[in-house]
Amino acid sequence: MGESSSSSSSFSKIEEEVSRLAELAKELQDSASSFISKSTTEEQSLRQRALSIDSSLKKLRSTLHSSIQTGAIDPKQADKLDEELYRARCILSDGDGASFLPNKSHGRFLKMFLGPINVRATRKDVQLKVKEEYNSYRDRTAFLFLLFPSTLLLLRSWVWNGCLPALPVQLYQAWLLFLYTSLALRENILRVNGSDIRSWWICHHYCAMVMALVSLTWEIKGQPDCSHMQSAVQLFLLWAVMQGVAMLLQNRYQRQRLYTRIALGKAKRMDVVWGETAGVEGQLLLLCPILFVLQGFEAYIGLLLLKTALVGVVSEWQVVVCGILLVVMAVGNFANTVQTLMSKSRIKAKMRKTKSKQELNQEPLAKSL
Amino acid sequence: MGESSSSSSSFSKIEEEVSRLAELAKELQDSASSFISKSTTEEQSLRQRALSIDSSLKKLRSTLHSSIQTGAIDPKQADKLDEELYRARCILSDGDGASFLPNKSHGRFLKMFLGPINVRATRKDVQLKVKEEYNSYRDRTAFLFLLFPSTLLLLRSWVWNGCLPALPVQLYQAWLLFLYTSLALRENILRVNGSDIRSWWICHHYCAMVMALVSLTWEIKGQPDCSHMQSAVQLFLLWAVMQGVAMLLQNRYQRQRLYTRIALGKAKRMDVVWGETAGVEGQLLLLCPILFVLQGFEAYIGLLLLKTALVGVVSEWQVVVCGILLVVMAVGNFANTVQTLMSKSRIKAKMRKTKSKQELNQEPLAKSL
Repeated sequence: MGESSSSSSSFSKIEEEVSRLAELAKELQDSASSFISKSTTEEQSLRQRALSIDSSLKKLRSTLHSSIQTGAIDPKQADKLDEELYRARCILSDGDGASFLPNKSHGRFLKMFLGPINVRATRKDVQLKVKEEYNSYRDRTAFLFLLFPSTLLLLRSWVWNGCLPALPVQLYQAWLLFLYTSLALRENILRVNGSDIRSWWICHHYCAMVMALVSLTWEIKGQPDCSHMQSAVQLFLLWAVMQGVAMLLQNRYQRQRLYTRIALGKAKRMDVVWGETAGVEGQLLLLCPILFVLQGFEAYIGLLLLKTALVGVVSEWQVVVCGILLVVMAVGNFANTVQTLMSKSRIKAKMRKTKSKQELNQEPLAKSL
Repeated sequence: MGESSSSSSSFSKIEEEVSRLAELAKELQDSASSFISKSTTEEQSLRQRALSIDSSLKKLRSTLHSSIQTGAIDPKQADKLDEELYRARCILSDGDGASFLPNKSHGRFLKMFLGPINVRATRKDVQLKVKEEYNSYRDRTAFLFLLFPSTLLLLRSWVWNGCLPALPVQLYQAWLLFLYTSLALRENILRVNGSDIRSWWICHHYCAMVMALVSLTWEIKGQPDCSHMQSAVQLFLLWAVMQGVAMLLQNRYQRQRLYTRIALGKAKRMDVVWGETAGVEGQLLLLCPILFVLQGFEAYIGLLLLKTALVGVVSEWQVVVCGILLVVMAVGNFANTVQTLMSKSRIKAKMRKTKSKQELNQEPLAKSL
C-alpha cells in the first residue's frame, strides 16, 4: 500500500513536470514562429528599400555622367557630386544595408556541390570573418604551394637519382585537386557574400581543377629513359615553384593594399583582389614582371606539351588536354592582368586629382567600417 | 550666361537628389543595423529558452527511465508519460523552435572545403527544401550509378572486344569522385541542419572518395593479356551495377517509409535514413538480402585485390589501398545494417504496443508538420 502511494506520488510529480515542459515547448514554438514571421516581413521591407535606393543611385549616376559628357555640368562640380554619390553607394554597399540587397545567384558550381543551401551571411562581421579566413587560407596554401614541388624537385636530384617515383607526385596532384576545388568553392561563396572577385579567377580555378584531375590519370613513367619521359612533369613542377613564389608575393601585397584601400574608403572589404589585378608603386615593380614571366612560362609549357603530343613521343590524350588548358589559362591570366592594370591606371589618375580631399576625409570613413 | 545658369540649375537638381539619396541610405543603414541588433538579441533569448527546455526534457527523461527501472512507477503509466514526453520533444525538435537549439558543429570536412561559412537554415521550410533536394539528387544519381557501369560493361563485350579503353573508365571514376564529394558535403550540411544521419554513412563516403581518387591513378592496362589485367576493373564495375540497383530500391523504399513515419509523427523530416538503416515488412524482404549480398561481394572484391597484390601479379600500391578500403567499407556497412535492424526491431516491438493510440493521434501530428 505504501509502495503504491509512493509510486503514484512520483508518477504525479513527473506527470506535472511533463505537462509543464510540454507547455513551455508550445510557448517557445509560438514565440519562435512569430519571431520568424515578423523578422521575415521586416527583412522583406528592408530589402525593398535597399533595392529602390540602389536603383535610384544607379540612375542618378548615369544622369550625372551624361550631364558631364554633354557639358551641362561643370567638370569640377561634377567631381564633387561624383564623390558624394560614391560615398552614398559605399554606405549602402558596405554598411548593414548591404545584407538586404538582392542576393547574387549562387551559380551552378555551388549548387552542384552543395545543393540549394544558402551560404550568404546576413551579418557584416560574419561576412568579414569569412573573407579574412579566406585570406589566411591563401597564405597557408601559398606556403605549401611552394614547399611541395620544390621538395619533390630537390629529392629528385638528391635522393631519387633524377627519377621521380609515382606516389609522391600523385599525392601532390591529389592535393592540387583538393586545393583548387576548395578555392573555387570558397570564392563562389565570397561572391555570393558580395565580393567583387573577377569571374576569370574563378574560371581559372575550374581549369586548374580539370588539369589536376587529368594529371592524376597520367601515368608517370619510370626507368628506362626516365629523365626524357619525365621532362614534362619536371617542367610542371618548376612552374608550380614559380607560382608559389608569385602567390606569396601577391598575398603580401594584396592584403597590404586592401587595408590601405579600406582605410581610404575606396574598397568594400569583401573585394578579393588577386595579385594580378592591380598595382601600386613599390612592390608592383617586382610583382608585375614575375607575373608576366610566369604567364609566358605557363604558355611555353602548354605549347611544349602540345608539341610532344603532335610529334608523337607521348600519344596520351592527357598531354593534349593539359597543354590546351595551360595555354588557355596563360592567355586568360595575361588578358586579365593587362585589363586590370589599365583600369587601375585610370583609377590612379582619378585618385591623384582627389587625393588631398581623400586624406581630409579619411578619418570618418575609416571609422564607419 | 544662359548656359551657365542652366548648368547651375541641373547641378543643384542633381545635388539635391544626391543628398536625398545619401540621407535615405543613412536611414536604411540605421534601420538595418537596429533590425540586426534587435533580432540578434531576440534570437539569443529564444536560444536560451530552447536550450533550457531541451536540457530539462533530457533530465526528466532519464529520471523517468530510472524510475521505471527501480519500479517506482508502474510500467503502464510510464509508457503514457514516455509518449507525452516524446511528443514534447517532437514539438521542440520539429517546430520552429528547433532553429534555436544549439548548432551542431560544422565538422572538419565542411570547414576544409568551405571555410567558416554557416550552412544552417533558420526557417524550417528551407531546411525541408534542402532535404527534399537531397532526396531527388540521390534519385537522379542512383539512375546514373546504374547506367554508367552497365554501359561500360555492355560496350566492352559488344564493341570493344573484351578490352576496356582507359578514357571512359577514367571519366566514370572522375564522376564517382565528384559524386562522393558532393554527397559527403550535402550530408554534412544536412547534419548541421538537424538530420540524424548515422556518421558511418558519411564516413563511408569519405572512404569511397579516397577509393575513387586512388582508382584514377591506377593505370588501366590494354593489350596484350587485357582480360586478365582488367579482371579487377570488371569486378569493380559489376559491383557498381549491383550498388546502383540497391540504391534505386533503397531510395524508393526510404522515401515511402519516411513519409509514413512523418505521418505517424515518429520521425523528424530531417532524418536521412539510408536503405540499410531499417526495414518494414514488404520491400524489406527484397532489400535486406540484396544489401547483404552486396556487402559480401564488396568484401570479396577487396580480398581478391589484396590477394592479387600479395601474389605479385600487380604490384601497384593502388591495388592494396583499394582492397583495404573495400574490406573496411563492407565490414562497416554490414555492422551498421545489423545494428540498425536490431534497434529497428526494438522500436517495432514498442510501436506495436502503442499502435492503436498512434493511429488516433495521427491527424493533429500530421498537420503540425
